[in-house]
Amino acid sequence: MDKAGYPINLFEFEDAARRVLDKGDFDSVVGGATDELTIARTRQVFDSILLRPRRLVDVSHRDLSTTVLSSRVSFPVMLAPSGGHQLVHPDGEVATVRAAGSAGLLTVLSVGSTRPMEEVAAAAKGPLWFQQHILKDKAIQHDLAERAKEAGFCGLCLTVDSLGFGKRERDLRNSWRPIEGQGSSVINYSPYFGGPGLKAPSQLPELIDTSATWSDAADFVAQTTLPVVIKGILTAEDARLCVESGASGIVVSAHGGRNLDTTVTSIEVLGEVVDIVAGAAEVYMDGGVRRGTDVVKALALGARAVLIGRPIFWGLAVGGAGGLRATLEILRDEIDLTMALTGKSTIGSIDKSLLMVGSVPGVPISRV
Amino acid sequence: MDKAGYPINLFEFEDAARRVLDKGDFDSVVGGATDELTIARTRQVFDSILLRPRRLVDVSHRDLSTTVLSSRVSFPVMLAPSGGHQLVHPDGEVATVRAAGSAGLLTVLSVGSTRPMEEVAAAAKGPLWFQQHILKDKAIQHDLAERAKEAGFCGLCLTVDSLGFGKRERDLRNSWRPIEGQGSSVINYSPYFGGPGLKAPSQLPELIDTSATWSDAADFVAQTTLPVVIKGILTAEDARLCVESGASGIVVSAHGGRNLDTTVTSIEVLGEVVDIVAGAAEVYMDGGVRRGTDVVKALALGARAVLIGRPIFWGLAVGGAGGLRATLEILRDEIDLTMALTGKSTIGSIDKSLLMVGSVPGVPISRV
Amino acid sequence: MDKAGYPINLFEFEDAARRVLDKGDFDSVVGGATDELTIARTRQVFDSILLRPRRLVDVSHRDLSTTVLSSRVSFPVMLAPSGGHQLVHPDGEVATVRAAGSAGLLTVLSVGSTRPMEEVAAAAKGPLWFQQHILKDKAIQHDLAERAKEAGFCGLCLTVDSLGFGKRERDLRNSWRPIEGQGSSVINYSPYFGGPGLKAPSQLPELIDTSATWSDAADFVAQTTLPVVIKGILTAEDARLCVESGASGIVVSAHGGRNLDTTVTSIEVLGEVVDIVAGAAEVYMDGGVRRGTDVVKALALGARAVLIGRPIFWGLAVGGAGGLRATLEILRDEIDLTMALTGKSTIGSIDKSLLMVGSVPGVPISRV
Amino acid sequence: MDKAGYPINLFEFEDAARRVLDKGDFDSVVGGATDELTIARTRQVFDSILLRPRRLVDVSHRDLSTTVLSSRVSFPVMLAPSGGHQLVHPDGEVATVRAAGSAGLLTVLSVGSTRPMEEVAAAAKGPLWFQQHILKDKAIQHDLAERAKEAGFCGLCLTVDSLGFGKRERDLRNSWRPIEGQGSSVINYSPYFGGPGLKAPSQLPELIDTSATWSDAADFVAQTTLPVVIKGILTAEDARLCVESGASGIVVSAHGGRNLDTTVTSIEVLGEVVDIVAGAAEVYMDGGVRRGTDVVKALALGARAVLIGRPIFWGLAVGGAGGLRATLEILRDEIDLTMALTGKSTIGSIDKSLLMVGSVPGVPISRV
Repeated sequence: MDKAGYPINLFEFEDAARRVLDKGDFDSVVGGATDELTIARTRQVFDSILLRPRRLVDVSHRDLSTTVLSSRVSFPVMLAPSGGHQLVHPDGEVATVRAAGSAGLLTVLSVGSTRPMEEVAAAAKGPLWFQQHILKDKAIQHDLAERAKEAGFCGLCLTVDSLGFGKRERDLRNSWRPIEGQGSSVINYSPYFGGPGLKAPSQLPELIDTSATWSDAADFVAQTTLPVVIKGILTAEDARLCVESGASGIVVSAHGGRNLDTTVTSIEVLGEVVDIVAGAAEVYMDGGVRRGTDVVKALALGARAVLIGRPIFWGLAVGGAGGLRATLEILRDEIDLTMALTGKSTIGSIDKSLLMVGSVPGVPISRV
Repeated sequence: MDKAGYPINLFEFEDAARRVLDKGDFDSVVGGATDELTIARTRQVFDSILLRPRRLVDVSHRDLSTTVLSSRVSFPVMLAPSGGHQLVHPDGEVATVRAAGSAGLLTVLSVGSTRPMEEVAAAAKGPLWFQQHILKDKAIQHDLAERAKEAGFCGLCLTVDSLGFGKRERDLRNSWRPIEGQGSSVINYSPYFGGPGLKAPSQLPELIDTSATWSDAADFVAQTTLPVVIKGILTAEDARLCVESGASGIVVSAHGGRNLDTTVTSIEVLGEVVDIVAGAAEVYMDGGVRRGTDVVKALALGARAVLIGRPIFWGLAVGGAGGLRATLEILRDEIDLTMALTGKSTIGSIDKSLLMVGSVPGVPISRV
Repeated sequence: MDKAGYPINLFEFEDAARRVLDKGDFDSVVGGATDELTIARTRQVFDSILLRPRRLVDVSHRDLSTTVLSSRVSFPVMLAPSGGHQLVHPDGEVATVRAAGSAGLLTVLSVGSTRPMEEVAAAAKGPLWFQQHILKDKAIQHDLAERAKEAGFCGLCLTVDSLGFGKRERDLRNSWRPIEGQGSSVINYSPYFGGPGLKAPSQLPELIDTSATWSDAADFVAQTTLPVVIKGILTAEDARLCVESGASGIVVSAHGGRNLDTTVTSIEVLGEVVDIVAGAAEVYMDGGVRRGTDVVKALALGARAVLIGRPIFWGLAVGGAGGLRATLEILRDEIDLTMALTGKSTIGSIDKSLLMVGSVPGVPISRV
Repeated sequence: MDKAGYPINLFEFEDAARRVLDKGDFDSVVGGATDELTIARTRQVFDSILLRPRRLVDVSHRDLSTTVLSSRVSFPVMLAPSGGHQLVHPDGEVATVRAAGSAGLLTVLSVGSTRPMEEVAAAAKGPLWFQQHILKDKAIQHDLAERAKEAGFCGLCLTVDSLGFGKRERDLRNSWRPIEGQGSSVINYSPYFGGPGLKAPSQLPELIDTSATWSDAADFVAQTTLPVVIKGILTAEDARLCVESGASGIVVSAHGGRNLDTTVTSIEVLGEVVDIVAGAAEVYMDGGVRRGTDVVKALALGARAVLIGRPIFWGLAVGGAGGLRATLEILRDEIDLTMALTGKSTIGSIDKSLLMVGSVPGVPISRV
């Protein structure tokens, strides 16, 4: 616990959240697909990457700010799109964007938000992107994008790795399901109920277009004036297709190990994506970021910023907007300390020379 | 537990079987040779192989069916030859072939079946192969093959890695031995008792020809019109000899770690076998397959299909034909989900680009 | 326990210290930054380095003595600069230098000593170096160096990896802070209190110059006639800058894993530093040295000597100067035995042929 | 337990010995130097080496016999020189050689035998070698060798890796010391007490010549007509010197991890020794052999035979000569089964093709 009574690091925030949440709800947040091996591996990979600190660099003034697309953020962390924040706190996504904005950070709001996007946007203090899927009903898909633009979102995030839930065995064992209207995620779709494409909420799981291909992604980009970030990429091949589809950014992500187990982890394929993209788009990553050193390592491998997912829920569960703000401040302080102790005074000066050759699993020695 | 009260994955089926079986019987099914290191390693190797999921591929219609030799199966899993199914359920192999057939799968019936091959064949709904050894008494060996053909089996499986039991220390500690007429495996040999080659059941352990060489395998192939699959191969050298002997298929197998400990595991040598065979025979594998991701990984390394052994016993022990059917459906659903989430809509499209370079132990980086 | 009632190795000294110290104090000594992964890794690296013992070499007379800069020491171990020895024993650094001197060893006295440097120097029997930081107030920095020279210190040690404390979570959880005047480290700064650069002890944490660069290090060297050793180097790049700054020695160090977690460990980058320095300065290392075999391994990788930190506190806590002396004798005896059993009768004959190719993590096979 | 009430493998023999022996005595047998890491690593290395079994080789007649120098043994295992067998059984080394001889094996009798070498030789049924050190008193050294030849020993074993005990911390903690006249090892030296070179038993520890060099080894070989095997080699450099000294055989050995910790293990350097010796001497190994698969792996790496040490004590402790005989039979049966299941009918046919490329730690892929 720190002075304000909050935990002192993100792992302890997780422990604190475990204590305040129902087991079923907690498990639904932290659980992953089948054996949860990807979740474990993600931390192992981060922990095995070794920093090479430099000495006697002037670090008396450190600037952690950077930009993601056109938005300036106070440090290179974004809040990942994740549905159902009311599951862990009644203020839901309104608390989330308030905490993020007060910390100078950008939030990617999930289409599965438990508060309407317009309400969230009105409450927000910082920049927002809106996250969507490719839908069978292109009219709904397009209308969601237009509403987001209207509401003031400055970017769209197209998730391409979720065609339905993974096999989450904790939820199966707990017989867990979101409570209607609380942890549920129908609110942003509600204007379309009864319409031609979506007769009832029960049809929602069918709405995602599992036949979508890269031409649908290109169409999605072409039909909006907002920049589009494609999320869920784990291969160089798909990263190239993102660029060809007109994406402005790419989120390297294994969906937190929640959809498919034993995939490559995002941190270990980040380098291959950065290489092939070669600056044609910004590259971000999520998956397992828990320490300031993790953020700096991802940046050293070429990420422009990282996203955090589960820690949002832990912060909200422990203390609503205040708890989440404390979580974000821990990350900021740890990034700041890591920069001071590795000889980096700006985000832009963090490069691969900061990492030990050969300490990134899956990355050939020649790369780092 | 799922809706029908069955476990939700194969590991939990194993736990459930442990609870319903006598310890000696359970150990006889799951145990392996000496220190059981190969059993542990098999899972470690599967878990360490990393998938590279592709995005925005049309996976709205997924076809899991394939063929093994001339038989169409609904997904690329076969039931491995394994004796003594009555040990865990009174319906024995009759339940096995009913469950397999109703799932659209092929069963390889062990010569050590506890029900006569003719009875099993009559009860079967799906394709069957019959498994044999090279015997000292070639007349018995040949007659078994002829009976199998008569009974409607469409292929023969010649096991070449079992010249007697391994040192199974669980059985030694439990003083375990199969009960006569129940877990015993004499039934398919009973017509020959009292004949010139096999005076009494007590001579059965002596019947396997430990002096057999590859010319015996070639003779076995030559003396039947059924296609022959040779099972128990762990080296490229022997795989080549299988092809030269006329085999139509090869099962890469370490016999479930039950005969010799600390051998190479089947999944890590699968690639070297596929390479040398180069399409001249179909290549299958068994050993440690417990998840849909395991099946997809084996296919990515070049297997046409995989076989499961111990899970048959767990399914039968938990619920007879119904329990085994539930086991098979879990595997099918997991394979289907893995394909959806990796961007594969057909079995034929699964290839080595789906695996991370260097993540297969024992396989040089250049192969995968 | 040995005959005198002391523990028989350094790990048992740690256990004994745990029993006699308050938890907060003990944790403050042994704890490290955040997840303490670097601390664990340091031991793993030492343990994984494999010795290649030679036989039938005349080892009847073994000479463990060597020199560090101009000082002869009885074996290649130095006492690392570490503040606050009175935290664990009332005699503090006076006990430390007496034990070190009687063992024929050199002590690097921390500026954070809890006894005045002049008193410590007067009590010492062996050679001493004085450790400092680059300060904002160059007058104080220079005066400290002059006082050290006056007091008889024969070298200066410039610590460059400490710009403030790391995030030591044990201390945060224990709400631990040094008791004023006991574990505190203000004594050597007390003459400057009330002066122009340091009005009060509360300003001390602000005194370190976080804007310092390598030209400040060069100035530090230039302004003293004593040889200067720079401590806290973990990269070849910085080692080269040490040499260019005029340093006579370099301490490869990760600060005991106390400042930043998941850095490279000193033992695994020692070789790269030795290579680039190429004899232009002496190279030492600290971090995790607990066994005589560790010392010999560091020497084989090119270190002239090693430093120990935490074991000083354990020895003092267990038995003051006597306990520390016992600690040092254990190390000496273990080094002696290692030399006898690897065929080395002199320190100078220990070279990289003593290590198995490929057994040093992070060091390419071609180096060892 | 097997039918005769004996344990079913060597690990269980160790457990059984633990139960019947005093803790101090048991620890003195199984313990090693300092942290006992080499002991653990030895097993890890054996377990990680993977066998490549071949199929359809005629293994109906298996011949496990081989020769070590001129002696035929029934399988490629020797009993390692080890002092003090009366510590665990009153029959001491007399029981040892009876068990070994009845199993068709060769025993290397330690100079530290607790029964006179002449008595042991008279009781023996199988071939014997006598183990010595290079002594300061060459007359005693020479007389021991002559006595051994007179008594019928057919080879000498010169141990070169023991210049005094290692730091065995179990013994220090247990304050363990051998009981005079029981576990003590003075009996073979007793004729020399009171003579010019050895006034009293208390001088025995001083008798080993720590100044010995390879010319002393060459003298040792030159002064006997018996073949000499040099024991305790862990490097190619020393193996070459063995050959140049005239040795007929070499025992690659880390002295069971009892003298120096974190050395290379014998199994992982066996290949480099075999390569450099290139047939000029026979190469044996000891260290960690517990399974028949271990023996076969050592042979595949080029060893002519292996030696076992601690298992002798376990067998004797559990059942004297009968217990040791049971231990040896387990090894023989496991070797036999390993050969049957890997397609080897003779010892001579076991070669490196039996091992997976890259599965031997420390051995470059190109070697195996």
